[in-house]
Amino acid sequence: MSVQFDDAREARIGIPEAVFCASKPEADLRALFTRFAAPETAPILFTRVAPDRWACCPEELRPSYDYDPVSRTAWNKTRGKRPTGRVALVSAGTADGAVIGEAARTIEYLGWTAVRFEDCGVAGLWRIQKAIADINACDVVICAAGLDAALASVLGGLTDRPIFAVPTSVGYGVAAGGETALRSMLASCAPGVAVMNIDNGYGAACAAARVLRALGH
Amino acid sequence: MSVQFDDAREARIGIPEAVFCASKPEADLRALFTRFAAPETAPILFTRVAPDRWACCPEELRPSYDYDPVSRTAWNKTRGKRPTGRVALVSAGTADGAVIGEAARTIEYLGWTAVRFEDCGVAGLWRIQKAIADINACDVVICAAGLDAALASVLGGLTDRPIFAVPTSVGYGVAAGGETALRSMLASCAPGVAVMNIDNGYGAACAAARVLRALGH
Amino acid sequence: MSVQFDDAREARIGIPEAVFCASKPEADLRALFTRFAAPETAPILFTRVAPDRWACCPEELRPSYDYDPVSRTAWNKTRGKRPTGRVALVSAGTADGAVIGEAARTIEYLGWTAVRFEDCGVAGLWRIQKAIADINACDVVICAAGLDAALASVLGGLTDRPIFAVPTSVGYGVAAGGETALRSMLASCAPGVAVMNIDNGYGAACAAARVLRALGH
Amino acid sequence: MSVQFDDAREARIGIPEAVFCASKPEADLRALFTRFAAPETAPILFTRVAPDRWACCPEELRPSYDYDPVSRTAWNKTRGKRPTGRVALVSAGTADGAVIGEAARTIEYLGWTAVRFEDCGVAGLWRIQKAIADINACDVVICAAGLDAALASVLGGLTDRPIFAVPTSVGYGVAAGGETALRSMLASCAPGVAVMNIDNGYGAACAAARVLRALGH
Amino acid sequence: MSVQFDDAREARIGIPEAVFCASKPEADLRALFTRFAAPETAPILFTRVAPDRWACCPEELRPSYDYDPVSRTAWNKTRGKRPTGRVALVSAGTADGAVIGEAARTIEYLGWTAVRFEDCGVAGLWRIQKAIADINACDVVICAAGLDAALASVLGGLTDRPIFAVPTSVGYGVAAGGETALRSMLASCAPGVAVMNIDNGYGAACAAARVLRALGH
Amino acid sequence: MSVQFDDAREARIGIPEAVFCASKPEADLRALFTRFAAPETAPILFTRVAPDRWACCPEELRPSYDYDPVSRTAWNKTRGKRPTGRVALVSAGTADGAVIGEAARTIEYLGWTAVRFEDCGVAGLWRIQKAIADINACDVVICAAGLDAALASVLGGLTDRPIFAVPTSVGYGVAAGGETALRSMLASCAPGVAVMNIDNGYGAACAAARVLRALGH
Amino acid sequence: MSVQFDDAREARIGIPEAVFCASKPEADLRALFTRFAAPETAPILFTRVAPDRWACCPEELRPSYDYDPVSRTAWNKTRGKRPTGRVALVSAGTADGAVIGEAARTIEYLGWTAVRFEDCGVAGLWRIQKAIADINACDVVICAAGLDAALASVLGGLTDRPIFAVPTSVGYGVAAGGETALRSMLASCAPGVAVMNIDNGYGAACAAARVLRALGH
Amino acid sequence: MSVQFDDAREARIGIPEAVFCASKPEADLRALFTRFAAPETAPILFTRVAPDRWACCPEELRPSYDYDPVSRTAWNKTRGKRPTGRVALVSAGTADGAVIGEAARTIEYLGWTAVRFEDCGVAGLWRIQKAIADINACDVVICAAGLDAALASVLGGLTDRPIFAVPTSVGYGVAAGGETALRSMLASCAPGVAVMNIDNGYGAACAAARVLRALGH
Repeated sequence: MSVQFDDAREARIGIPEAVFCASKPEADLRALFTRFAAPETAPILFTRVAPDRWACCPEELRPSYDYDPVSRTAWNKTRGKRPTGRVALVSAGTADGAVIGEAARTIEYLGWTAVRFEDCGVAGLWRIQKAIADINACDVVICAAGLDAALASVLGGLTDRPIFAVPTSVGYGVAAGGETALRSMLASCAPGVAVMNIDNGYGAACAAARVLRALGH
Repeated sequence: MSVQFDDAREARIGIPEAVFCASKPEADLRALFTRFAAPETAPILFTRVAPDRWACCPEELRPSYDYDPVSRTAWNKTRGKRPTGRVALVSAGTADGAVIGEAARTIEYLGWTAVRFEDCGVAGLWRIQKAIADINACDVVICAAGLDAALASVLGGLTDRPIFAVPTSVGYGVAAGGETALRSMLASCAPGVAVMNIDNGYGAACAAARVLRALGH
Repeated sequence: MSVQFDDAREARIGIPEAVFCASKPEADLRALFTRFAAPETAPILFTRVAPDRWACCPEELRPSYDYDPVSRTAWNKTRGKRPTGRVALVSAGTADGAVIGEAARTIEYLGWTAVRFEDCGVAGLWRIQKAIADINACDVVICAAGLDAALASVLGGLTDRPIFAVPTSVGYGVAAGGETALRSMLASCAPGVAVMNIDNGYGAACAAARVLRALGH
Repeated sequence: MSVQFDDAREARIGIPEAVFCASKPEADLRALFTRFAAPETAPILFTRVAPDRWACCPEELRPSYDYDPVSRTAWNKTRGKRPTGRVALVSAGTADGAVIGEAARTIEYLGWTAVRFEDCGVAGLWRIQKAIADINACDVVICAAGLDAALASVLGGLTDRPIFAVPTSVGYGVAAGGETALRSMLASCAPGVAVMNIDNGYGAACAAARVLRALGH
Repeated sequence: MSVQFDDAREARIGIPEAVFCASKPEADLRALFTRFAAPETAPILFTRVAPDRWACCPEELRPSYDYDPVSRTAWNKTRGKRPTGRVALVSAGTADGAVIGEAARTIEYLGWTAVRFEDCGVAGLWRIQKAIADINACDVVICAAGLDAALASVLGGLTDRPIFAVPTSVGYGVAAGGETALRSMLASCAPGVAVMNIDNGYGAACAAARVLRALGH
Repeated sequence: MSVQFDDAREARIGIPEAVFCASKPEADLRALFTRFAAPETAPILFTRVAPDRWACCPEELRPSYDYDPVSRTAWNKTRGKRPTGRVALVSAGTADGAVIGEAARTIEYLGWTAVRFEDCGVAGLWRIQKAIADINACDVVICAAGLDAALASVLGGLTDRPIFAVPTSVGYGVAAGGETALRSMLASCAPGVAVMNIDNGYGAACAAARVLRALGH
Repeated sequence: MSVQFDDAREARIGIPEAVFCASKPEADLRALFTRFAAPETAPILFTRVAPDRWACCPEELRPSYDYDPVSRTAWNKTRGKRPTGRVALVSAGTADGAVIGEAARTIEYLGWTAVRFEDCGVAGLWRIQKAIADINACDVVICAAGLDAALASVLGGLTDRPIFAVPTSVGYGVAAGGETALRSMLASCAPGVAVMNIDNGYGAACAAARVLRALGH
Repeated sequence: MSVQFDDAREARIGIPEAVFCASKPEADLRALFTRFAAPETAPILFTRVAPDRWACCPEELRPSYDYDPVSRTAWNKTRGKRPTGRVALVSAGTADGAVIGEAARTIEYLGWTAVRFEDCGVAGLWRIQKAIADINACDVVICAAGLDAALASVLGGLTDRPIFAVPTSVGYGVAAGGETALRSMLASCAPGVAVMNIDNGYGAACAAARVLRALGH
């Protein structure tokens, strides 16, 4: 296995290395699943564990992991629950569930609390308005939306929290693949909305983690 | 002059031909300004009359026209005021003024009433909420926005009027040129929002005109 | 199920919420099919019900729905037939059938009448010329075309009806995915042609519905 | 001057080399204008002679050239008039005049006859229908159009002549630069429409010349 | 079946209608295969008959057709062999075979002779130089190439025949899908090279047919 | 003046409204400069005050403003100096100075301290390594880079601070306009790097402000 | 088989022709595998031998080849081991293994030595810093990276060797397909980094081979 | 001045830092021109010195520099003439002169010999064939071309030298800006052609320098 683990990453940037499974050769993936199933290993998070990736985990080792197929994440153990630090996860539609899930599971793996506010798309403004007070009670906001991603701008104009927007690849026609949502979020008319790569729920959670650590949670 | 006027256009589609000035050769443009300055001619609307285009109009003929530099439109006379038929023109920011202006002037040239609701961007939701009842009192809605164009989705979720969205080329970075606003509007999460070409205020007015005529105004 | 139904949508915008099935998690979809199969529920329209989506509907509940595989739509019951209100659905080729079907089924679900004029591509102009009188006898026109989408411009120059153009993803090479048709329709030389997202037959029907309601049908 | 003239080009491909002036260094251009102003030289065609390019021609030599500012072409002398061989040049709007002009002047320089049919856009179908018999009386057809370029498809369905379509950069928004017209022409639903680069009137004339020579004109 | 056959197409443009099978609904396709299997029907060409499309042809009717899986074409009978008229089909690599095949079969269906010159890519210039005399002995040239499509420019500089270039979708990275080849051909430094849509072998054959008919073959 | 000031913005999102001058009509801009030159007005920040925009400020009022041509910003007065809260502003090259300047001036206007680390591009790694300890002594990091934007990833791997990356439009060829830098930053291999629109120094400062406020500075 | 082997290629450019298998018709591929399995044939390299391509090799002939599924390459025999000439192959992540493998196997087939330095992404700078001395001990450097491809710039600033960068299609969202990595490498702030097509490990090896030959290895 | 000179660059990568003038603030540029005009300073190369950049050089200091307006380069002194090491600079057309010039001047500044072969476009193949023997007598080849960039592939198939291709922004329509030439070169059918950013003559010279140094020149 040619993997070079960046063990010092947490010391440098406050976020431990995770295993991105999407394009890893199967042999490497199998070796990693095996290595981290051993009881004495440190906690580890696997992301983008689509079914064909999960299939690389030897069957007898699967009980060693907490695997969630919707968010496509798996961990051997979490890094322990922290008493404070809450992240609001707001989505425009139920189809954004995989991205919200990836962010939520990463937050939870790192020990903080993820609070979900789903299906709040602005075609029915009452949905975000009903949730905004609870959202503003959190420390950081992550907003996932596809299509026109208008939710990011509306939400950005209603919260004073640090806010990270994740475009999702949900949609068809001009929305397919998430490029429209990405551009819409980057061009948001609400100031200070920062943007992640398309479908990058993991990255949004890491950006939130940088803030939570700075806040001392 | 190689122009072939489509005099039968109004009979066929209910909208008279207008003169799009943007790329016309100067000689043709000068001839057209001359021809329509004669008192007995029919009403005509010139669009995209940027300063260099207006300069093609012989100076002595300019008083024959009502020229508006913001909307870049000119007419010799309007087609008469109609008693009913109102179009709401809603913009996200003052920078969308040229597009709103082109739509408003076209509506007015055709005889209907244009009602402006400007600077209603969703970063401050109260602006569109304050205006929505008056907007819904109009027959048709035109919405112009650049950047993320989130206004189109929010407005589309608040009105039951036929709504035509015009992306504007306002913005910089990914928003420059209006492609982001265009895609955002096409991908709107609000159902039944129809979209025009970037900066096409004239076209939105024509689409509204098709509806107003059907309504008998 | 994290779905938040926008029950007030019809009151606000005149169009009831529909269920877009394309990216919904399977569990959510199964719950929705189950919920709306109960006899006492309100009418509901499911769109983008591709075969793998339809498979989420429990087999014993399928007889509760009217499912059409070509348009990929299903409903438990329609909202009742309205006596007037006719929409012309004009397509360039038979390959646009799925889009025309989605629009037609949405119109019918909402209670109006859909009249189809298929395979009218302008390579043989006689086809649209033969149909134009009947098209103009309808209240609103929807035009679906892929490839060069030239039909939208020709039709836009032959009808005075409100017209909504839907680019389709039909074609190969530069036409694949519908971007060429979309851009061609947005740049139409016929005034007042409004455009929907690629393959968005549902949206075109909603835009038509906004007009039909304004017309009192 | 580092220019290497391809004197054998006409022998090889039937079309003599021309001087494309758009990006040539000024010194080279001046040298070329000087060289070909001498009475004994062979005929030569300069293309893309925008005003700043024409300014490179020493003033005293300008009378040696036939310069046309609309088509941005200049020649010292033509290659002689040929008795037969007619090319129909059809445009959608007067704004396509520069492209039509470049094609026409190239045809005339090579000795054939260019017949212009301008402003035939399909928003008023009667214009192309009125002209089609005369167009079909020519040997080859060149069609120039911007915006949606729908004219190419309609014309391609009405003529059996070899047809070369030139997208023009006319338009704004999605049409700006000619990419939409280019893609629309490439995706034409009419069979056998061949396409040139955007604004390439010269190339269309050369393609026509290949056919005219094969026809023995 | 909602198909409207354009029976008058041949009279208008010299090319009979063909059946493009790629996106046709299966039921329509089955009906068409059945209709044209009857012995008394006119000749017909089916294009883009990929295996799943050919599967729509009832098994007992398949012997009525001449089906070629490489070019994905089928016909019930050809339109008869014409004594003269030869088209050179030149490809850059063997991977362009499907496109060359579609063009060749269309030429043959229409009655003319297709002469193939395959694998002539310019990385080994001797290949095109060896073939050029034979190519120039044909009436029209079709050139298919993917990747950089440099063959079109080299060939365009070596032949005086009418030449139609077809970009192919062969390649990976920046070449995938054929957009690079398309743009390269449109920007060809050789004058008078006309271009078709990506992979459009059928269209190139139709363009050639327009020339062959003009030549009286 | 059709401007609707969002006076409640600071109460809602913690950031007061600023005046984006880039596309504002000149009359509106003049009115705004006049209004905020009055001594009793609240502090205001004008951004994108390019020379032609600054020219809209009546000459006699210019002394009322602190105008900086490099960052293209102007304010009548700042919002007061805050004792703590430091933002590191790191750039790849001196050409990123306008963007760094816009961010720095916004931070200073809001009352916090901006610390600049310029010309730290990774072609000479020692530059960022020399500065990293001082960067990590700040509360938040803003990174501006054009071209390949590799600095964002290297910096993201060396700091545990919340980090906001701003692509700049610096460069030529594939780098022109900043799209390459934008995509590179979005695809950063360092976790938790959040991205702003191209050249959006103001937005990065606002994102930093959201964090600084949460931190209690 | 229509293949025209370019046997003189090695004499002309120093690199023998290889067989690119990706789009070759199956019959051609089978014939080639058969032809080169004969013991007396010259050495040959097959590239892009994905499993479905390898399946075209008759089973009984497979033992005649050295096939490596990761790099998707096969050869009948190598061209002999050369005593000197070393190429450093540096990758950002293990997911770049297929590209590194294709380059390595090509180098080895041609007789030189490939030295691998994998998983050296700059999010953990120590990885490339640990390896740089060994890298600089090689004659040429090949660098493969996806995502932001920042490794190419960092490496280009640390080595004086000729360096060829290969963007890989690894990643998701804006990184999917490798276009971002390609543009980032082309815009590298380190001088003299030359770039190959996406995933073109074979091409990078050939570029390295041109240098190694010039160096006399 | 915030510039941080990378004085150690030559020690690390063999190429001394140069001053890229295109986007530098004027004040910085003036300071740099002043600093390097002093007689005792080391040699320095300024690139992209367009007229407005050259104007930043105080007039009295201009005689201290060797400024070439075509290549837009200036140096105070060269780094000394080296006895061996020759680079062939091959262009497709005279319009590529600025790029060829930038590469040539950089080579000369570094001390090696640049040999120019201009206007060798493949539309007249004899031009490159006439020059190929002299090209192959050089150590490294740089090829600059715009439009279809077919020259890179033809040249790549005729030389065994290390070859660096530079797409130029020459052309119009699809060729404008150089993206087509870039993609064509990246997709070259000739193996081992490495590519630089559009118009990056400086970078190509640096890539050549890496090879020349390895060769011991």
